[in-house]
Amino acid sequence: MKRLTFPIVGGLFQVLIIVLFALLADYGDHAVPRHRRVGSSSNTNETKKLEVNNIGMYYPMFMDVHVMIFFGFPYLLSFFKRFSYCGVAYAFFGAALSAQWGILMSGIFGSLIYGEPHIQVNILSITSADFTAAVALIAYCSTLGYCSTLQLIVISFFLPIFYAINEIVLFNYLQVTDPGGCMLVHAFGAYYGLAFCKVLYRKDSTETTKAEPSYNSDLFSLIGSILLWIYWPSFNSVFGAPDYVTQHRIVINTYLGLASSAVVVFLVSSAVNKEGKITMAHVQNATLAGGVAVGTASSMMMYPWGALLVGSIGGAVSTLGFQFVSPFLVRHLKINDVAGIHNLHGMPGIIGAVAGAIIAAQAEHEAYGYEGLYDVFGARAPVANSTEFYKLQSLGVTFTPGEGRSAKRQGLFQLAGVGATVGIAVIGGLVNGFIARLRIFDPPKQHQLYDDADFFNLPDGKESYSTMEFIMTKLGCNSDKNTNENPEKNEQEKEELMKDK
Amino acid sequence: MKRLTFPIVGGLFQVLIIVLFALLADYGDHAVPRHRRVGSSSNTNETKKLEVNNIGMYYPMFMDVHVMIFFGFPYLLSFFKRFSYCGVAYAFFGAALSAQWGILMSGIFGSLIYGEPHIQVNILSITSADFTAAVALIAYCSTLGYCSTLQLIVISFFLPIFYAINEIVLFNYLQVTDPGGCMLVHAFGAYYGLAFCKVLYRKDSTETTKAEPSYNSDLFSLIGSILLWIYWPSFNSVFGAPDYVTQHRIVINTYLGLASSAVVVFLVSSAVNKEGKITMAHVQNATLAGGVAVGTASSMMMYPWGALLVGSIGGAVSTLGFQFVSPFLVRHLKINDVAGIHNLHGMPGIIGAVAGAIIAAQAEHEAYGYEGLYDVFGARAPVANSTEFYKLQSLGVTFTPGEGRSAKRQGLFQLAGVGATVGIAVIGGLVNGFIARLRIFDPPKQHQLYDDADFFNLPDGKESYSTMEFIMTKLGCNSDKNTNENPEKNEQEKEELMKDK
Amino acid sequence: MKRLTFPIVGGLFQVLIIVLFALLADYGDHAVPRHRRVGSSSNTNETKKLEVNNIGMYYPMFMDVHVMIFFGFPYLLSFFKRFSYCGVAYAFFGAALSAQWGILMSGIFGSLIYGEPHIQVNILSITSADFTAAVALIAYCSTLGYCSTLQLIVISFFLPIFYAINEIVLFNYLQVTDPGGCMLVHAFGAYYGLAFCKVLYRKDSTETTKAEPSYNSDLFSLIGSILLWIYWPSFNSVFGAPDYVTQHRIVINTYLGLASSAVVVFLVSSAVNKEGKITMAHVQNATLAGGVAVGTASSMMMYPWGALLVGSIGGAVSTLGFQFVSPFLVRHLKINDVAGIHNLHGMPGIIGAVAGAIIAAQAEHEAYGYEGLYDVFGARAPVANSTEFYKLQSLGVTFTPGEGRSAKRQGLFQLAGVGATVGIAVIGGLVNGFIARLRIFDPPKQHQLYDDADFFNLPDGKESYSTMEFIMTKLGCNSDKNTNENPEKNEQEKEELMKDK
Repeated sequence: MKRLTFPIVGGLFQVLIIVLFALLADYGDHAVPRHRRVGSSSNTNETKKLEVNNIGMYYPMFMDVHVMIFFGFPYLLSFFKRFSYCGVAYAFFGAALSAQWGILMSGIFGSLIYGEPHIQVNILSITSADFTAAVALIAYCSTLGYCSTLQLIVISFFLPIFYAINEIVLFNYLQVTDPGGCMLVHAFGAYYGLAFCKVLYRKDSTETTKAEPSYNSDLFSLIGSILLWIYWPSFNSVFGAPDYVTQHRIVINTYLGLASSAVVVFLVSSAVNKEGKITMAHVQNATLAGGVAVGTASSMMMYPWGALLVGSIGGAVSTLGFQFVSPFLVRHLKINDVAGIHNLHGMPGIIGAVAGAIIAAQAEHEAYGYEGLYDVFGARAPVANSTEFYKLQSLGVTFTPGEGRSAKRQGLFQLAGVGATVGIAVIGGLVNGFIARLRIFDPPKQHQLYDDADFFNLPDGKESYSTMEFIMTKLGCNSDKNTNENPEKNEQEKEELMKDK
Repeated sequence: MKRLTFPIVGGLFQVLIIVLFALLADYGDHAVPRHRRVGSSSNTNETKKLEVNNIGMYYPMFMDVHVMIFFGFPYLLSFFKRFSYCGVAYAFFGAALSAQWGILMSGIFGSLIYGEPHIQVNILSITSADFTAAVALIAYCSTLGYCSTLQLIVISFFLPIFYAINEIVLFNYLQVTDPGGCMLVHAFGAYYGLAFCKVLYRKDSTETTKAEPSYNSDLFSLIGSILLWIYWPSFNSVFGAPDYVTQHRIVINTYLGLASSAVVVFLVSSAVNKEGKITMAHVQNATLAGGVAVGTASSMMMYPWGALLVGSIGGAVSTLGFQFVSPFLVRHLKINDVAGIHNLHGMPGIIGAVAGAIIAAQAEHEAYGYEGLYDVFGARAPVANSTEFYKLQSLGVTFTPGEGRSAKRQGLFQLAGVGATVGIAVIGGLVNGFIARLRIFDPPKQHQLYDDADFFNLPDGKESYSTMEFIMTKLGCNSDKNTNENPEKNEQEKEELMKDK
Repeated sequence: MKRLTFPIVGGLFQVLIIVLFALLADYGDHAVPRHRRVGSSSNTNETKKLEVNNIGMYYPMFMDVHVMIFFGFPYLLSFFKRFSYCGVAYAFFGAALSAQWGILMSGIFGSLIYGEPHIQVNILSITSADFTAAVALIAYCSTLGYCSTLQLIVISFFLPIFYAINEIVLFNYLQVTDPGGCMLVHAFGAYYGLAFCKVLYRKDSTETTKAEPSYNSDLFSLIGSILLWIYWPSFNSVFGAPDYVTQHRIVINTYLGLASSAVVVFLVSSAVNKEGKITMAHVQNATLAGGVAVGTASSMMMYPWGALLVGSIGGAVSTLGFQFVSPFLVRHLKINDVAGIHNLHGMPGIIGAVAGAIIAAQAEHEAYGYEGLYDVFGARAPVANSTEFYKLQSLGVTFTPGEGRSAKRQGLFQLAGVGATVGIAVIGGLVNGFIARLRIFDPPKQHQLYDDADFFNLPDGKESYSTMEFIMTKLGCNSDKNTNENPEKNEQEKEELMKDK
């Protein structure tokens, strides 16, 4: 029966999802006829909003995000030479699962808070589901190669719960601004993942020579990476609609932050290498750090040069992280973050969130206009029926009343958001890790680490996942000579096999 | 002269296309100035429609579909280890040819029916052309590896004719609803292709060991597959515009159907494997079956849980098809559907069409609203000048008069659509097959099956298309020993070569 | 210190860019609140334009172009078997650098001419930056494999300057129509690149056997190629907005030109091969020539059949160029255009520009309508306050006054545009070449040509970039026999290594 654990557990989860959708969810107001809309009311302004073509407004950017999460990210994870099938396919599976669950989790909290009779499924909730899936993949990939499919199901179950809680804390309680998700997505995913992989630490995961890329797997991985880089402006700006002035700014800032980040990564990667060579893992990952780092501030007045600067810093820090911080984490903290999420999402996420707090603390209506300011920072709008409220109304400014926060206060709330995010993430990751570590979730055996062979029906039999490895073995066998130039490698593998038996 | 048959036949076809375009086609009304528009008239409502920005409305989804047909599908077909060049490139060629021809064929029927003075080429007709190309590729790929380029030209010629006929039958006579093309695209392509490959059956196409993937070719193929999966909501919803409420629903249903399908495929694939391993061909193909299966009903009120359920069923059936039905078809019916179109397009297409008929038979205005109902099911709108017609007009409902069909009757017409599609498809496929089988269309020789070497100028000489195969041959030759572990393989290949001489 | 030249020079360039952005650039009017807009004025018409949602209008096509330049083009350049890392990664780097610099260069000229107080960074300028990056990559890739990263930085510095000059000449002085950039992008990039690679000519770049594709690298390259083909309509039409009638026409013409071009390339490629085989380099490149060739005329009334015809000619000429012209250029003119830019961008660019001139010389308002005509050919609009001007105004035609050019005169200006482009391009390419040839820019050593090993930290040590090459060497070494079937190859490589020492 053990081989059926995965289909059974996964099947029960999928059935649970369908049942909960049947009980709790319906189409959103934009996808049903007028008389069935929940939000429609005497408030003609609200009713008017429901007549907007939300597909036309959100769909193109949603689709870009969809490519990032379901194609870019999985292919980025194809980089291990013997683990490309699992790298891509498991991420695809995990994303599809956590996206469905994410709609339910965010939906349940959302409909509780807004007092809606059911979870509204619409273009915004599926975009949001893709964000949840992205965060699940960020956390998961820190353990890529030593996380079983059952453990992946456990992540797909727990992470969307903590993610939804953090979402509520950030946007409903703290009312932070975070269009690109420095906190919501990157820092959360990274620190959740680091806590998770700390708990799942195993020495053998750091020793195998299989945990390396090959020439081909690196090229596949780079496909995913560059597509992530390209579509990143859509990720940061998709929820900027319908305020297209702000959205325009997000697009520009993200474009520039990514461009400078890409350039700087090549320079730093070459500079830190003794022979001046470039490291592909830096190109695959750190070039994206510019998009992460401008995330929070991208809707703010960081100005083109500011975006370039923050992007450059993100790229540089991320590259240095891969070079110096990751090895430190393994050696001294026993955190074997194989995909480097701390370098790509953790540090640049924190940098971006703090940069956002600083810029937020200086935001004034002279630069943003009143409407722009309150669109970017909702809580800064005057309290309803206050003096300020009437003053602005008399000036013809249209806005939704807020809390009348000052710039400095908004900056402090932004900083509080960073703290809350890291806290919730670490707690979530630890809980998740301790549960996932249970034996029933079938952690991979030593010889299975970073290896497709026991998980996929490989085309040419067990040995041939990696052409070269296969041929080299063959060469050793057939020529009746000791042609093996890596005896220590083989020794190790033999040992692994023996231990396993 | 024989080597020039392909350029000559292809060249004549391309010249014919250009001549027919010159005689019959012009830009559509949205691409010419006002005074030259055919549809412009005293009817100000029609004239107003022509002022709409159709590029803004259709282009983003058209482009997604374009990626699916010209990139996703061809790369999906790169999966044979020695046939990746042909797999991708021939599909690209066939799509480009049948798309052009498809504009003419659908255009000729269309302009006859609507009495237009010429074929209008516009964003809708090129999107439709991409659909035609998709169907041609579905039919073609059942014979991937044993279909010559000339036979592909024959498909590209005949299929768009039968496709255009079926299109007219479905949408003008039966007036079925089929946004995602369960009938129009999937069932039609699948049964056309199965009939075609039944006629082209040859025993040697089932015997060669070349008809297998390699680790690399599977990774290339998966790129195409995942991109198809991602963009599928655009395929189903592109023609939903300009009714954006309906279109919104299509997007949601397709997203959900695909997500559950992806999850279920992994579970079922593992469950049917003795060692619990996952099979890559299932991931590449069956994950898409959710998008197929929700196709017809995606514009209807199937509700989020219904989309998840139908998607799950599609994914499960498709996986089981690959595992059990395909081997049965080869062995007992001599249908060697190498790409598994029956599993991906045939069965899920029928399931989706029948599901659509059932849901259609229950569709009432309480759920859809009058306008929504008549938008989804045009024939259900009241007959012009009937009592019902005036009643609705007095309620302020805007709609185009229809046939006043009942829900049950619409359901029956939907079922009739399935029958008509399968009938026309099988006739078309048989006709096409018998013509394509003629010797002048140069069916591949035995040693050419699933093999790029005789069709492409390969980089490193004939042997090296597959690194591993090449090296293994080398190993056999150079070590002066019988290092061959697959003697039966080599024997077979030698035989093939000898037969050929 | 030599190994730090690249990070230092690149770093200084990036710092210069950030400083100039800080001094000269700001967000464009569409990304700032109303009161900060430069273009806002008493002119209510202008003010109204600034309220348009430019992100909604331009973003989807911008994103398609972004994929082309940053993914399609780099992956197209992965085709050398040992140079795929550099092929992709350097192009990515060069594009990111020249895009930033391009915003500044085009922006400086633009703001001088239009008297704006600063460079406006907006969706149009980043789209334009992507165009600049495309041109830089076209020029650069003619020397792919024998151009150092420092030389690439030199191109990224100089080309955007000459590009911006040519842009001004074409659109401000000559006022040509060139939506797809036959002149602006393709001819300019090609002749700049040819001049550049003429100056950088070195005999050893033509002799190495490394300058060949492998089966895998060709498949990676084809990914880039087909995506370029697919998104090409967006490239040609992105700047067609907001005139959606014209834009619609561009989309149709480009779609058709590409489709016929793809078909014709397969036919011609097979026809010119002695065995009737198809050459992958033709499929990868010449299929795109249809998109190049319809570039200038795509907004004009070339009619669907005209687009098919021009596309066919482009595809055929390009294929013949790869087969016959490129070898001629190397042998007789010492121009080693390794990526074949002359065949893909040069000849089809000139053909398209001349075709555009011919069609422009016949354009009359009967076919375009007055508004359409003046939208496509701005200079043909009547001079302000002329008799014609008042006549049209009385007819209710809305247009911006122009120069009152005749059709013939516009045709001549189009031809002048070709001449100017080639002239400026050749001068730029020569200047750039002579500077890049300086020893400080570190031209690759002979053994480094077309070889990743000295530039990238390869996964499995120096030898293993190419699985097959590595194994074959191994085979030679380990079996103690002369298993080498390509003795001349090895000899040559040994010589190269010795020369280098």
